[in-house]
Amino acid sequence: MQHFSDSLYEAIINKDTPICVGLDPRLNQIPNFIRDRQRFKHKDVFTAAAECLIEFNKGIIDAVADLVPVVKVQSAFFEQYGHEGIRAFEDTLRYAKEKGLLVIADAKRGDIATTAEAYSHAFLGKIDLFDQQVSSFDADAVTVNPYFGFDGVKPFLNDAQKYGKGVFVLVKTSNLSSSDLQDRMTVDQLCNYEIMAHLVESWGADDIGKHGYSCIGVVVGASFPCEAQKLRQFLQHNFFLVPGYGAQGGSAKDVKVCFRDDGTGAIVNSSRDIIFAYENNKRFTEEDYAQAARSAVLKMKKELSESKN
Amino acid sequence: MQHFSDSLYEAIINKDTPICVGLDPRLNQIPNFIRDRQRFKHKDVFTAAAECLIEFNKGIIDAVADLVPVVKVQSAFFEQYGHEGIRAFEDTLRYAKEKGLLVIADAKRGDIATTAEAYSHAFLGKIDLFDQQVSSFDADAVTVNPYFGFDGVKPFLNDAQKYGKGVFVLVKTSNLSSSDLQDRMTVDQLCNYEIMAHLVESWGADDIGKHGYSCIGVVVGASFPCEAQKLRQFLQHNFFLVPGYGAQGGSAKDVKVCFRDDGTGAIVNSSRDIIFAYENNKRFTEEDYAQAARSAVLKMKKELSESKN
Repeated sequence: MQHFSDSLYEAIINKDTPICVGLDPRLNQIPNFIRDRQRFKHKDVFTAAAECLIEFNKGIIDAVADLVPVVKVQSAFFEQYGHEGIRAFEDTLRYAKEKGLLVIADAKRGDIATTAEAYSHAFLGKIDLFDQQVSSFDADAVTVNPYFGFDGVKPFLNDAQKYGKGVFVLVKTSNLSSSDLQDRMTVDQLCNYEIMAHLVESWGADDIGKHGYSCIGVVVGASFPCEAQKLRQFLQHNFFLVPGYGAQGGSAKDVKVCFRDDGTGAIVNSSRDIIFAYENNKRFTEEDYAQAARSAVLKMKKELSESKN
Repeated sequence: MQHFSDSLYEAIINKDTPICVGLDPRLNQIPNFIRDRQRFKHKDVFTAAAECLIEFNKGIIDAVADLVPVVKVQSAFFEQYGHEGIRAFEDTLRYAKEKGLLVIADAKRGDIATTAEAYSHAFLGKIDLFDQQVSSFDADAVTVNPYFGFDGVKPFLNDAQKYGKGVFVLVKTSNLSSSDLQDRMTVDQLCNYEIMAHLVESWGADDIGKHGYSCIGVVVGASFPCEAQKLRQFLQHNFFLVPGYGAQGGSAKDVKVCFRDDGTGAIVNSSRDIIFAYENNKRFTEEDYAQAARSAVLKMKKELSESKN
């Protein structure tokens, strides 16, 4: 069984880019031809919505699978359509894996240990159902909220180690109000987000893959390059999952500090700017939404690659 | 439209108890007669598991609906069975509401604003699906993780105000490692959980119901009575949702400090000790699991009532 951080490291090398495509499928931005077709085929509006998500996502995945190492699937945009939405979430994860992509379930779960264990079984692990070992979502990695502290994260780490999976813990998020709690200065002269980063480092220190990275990474927003730089200085063995590129304001220059000096150790996520690229590019009609996404990935790849030099 | 805090306040008065029954249905603790029946009826193991959860929960709800004001449904124990599990989650919420109970979805969601909005629409709000206004889970309240700060909580508050719903924000959780982040002392000479409590107070200050409570409450573990007492001294307008009673170690004496001096303002959750009471009470066979739960509620009601005097 391969260590998750090695799988991620090698996939980035193979695809020659650290781009993570964020699948945040907002129904009202999915092209009309898909919505009309699925609405016509399905009487139940939840089923129609779920089928729109599946068709749209498969189109994006087909268009980018040879270009990027990893996709991040945002659970909220599926959950809002109830159990049919979750069926679309499962289908999307399965399809992306079939196409050779690594898949991060962006769920930001967190709870007390016994409950976190159930979440971890849902996203990463296996469960025993009537003497059958089955997986529900079987993502390669999941994002976790650390408000509960170590015992709320440990069940995810257990499954990560058992099944070769990864965990990305929120440290400094990309939103403005992240300052409310994360930037508070503690009496140790470290902000909460720095404290959290040190904790994550220690939680993953025993489990380092052959390329030098832990199975536990951190989420650090592209919108805060100064904070990201500070974190990178001492987090030498943790992958950074960097949201906030593009639509949220982060540039290729901003994310440069998230990488180690050797140019490895971060994946940069872009969601809206890629999957809905057709909306802002007159070269493409909505029927070409997947081609527009591919084109946006190639543009982002060039931006990241140029800023590296 | 009734304010959520008024609905909760009045339900507590009507039922003469602040007990919240926690529906954390662990499949391996569900009585064999239910598991055998559902396994026999359903070939797909996920469907069989979901039907076990539904049958079990309906039995508990029928047995306690005339006794308690509110139930809390833990999403993790459904999510681990994938979309079939979420179907069981929906059915459980719907059934509990039909039986006149208030329902808290214990989901502990949290994300950046645009994503938190999707979660809020899932749990509290409505969505527009092909020109139909529909609800997915339609809970009366949801638990929210505040790591993202205000802009991650705001979408839930918006729906709470729009639809007469409630939000419970994690402040001091019941688990041991809650100290990792929540107990850190800041340079303001307040611990993080106190900072968070002050923020929650300010976020809800503009929206107080006729009985004096905000639509935004706090989650404070029964396992930390000193911290709870400190919080209650300044949080005069926020409901406390108090987990950790019973199985997690909190006693009737411990939770007393979570109430205001007038005896209102808290709901005390017990999950395992109620729903799986049949396991630890020789008077009941597994066929009597619902009756055992009813008996456990009556015992807890007596304990809480005696400690009040």
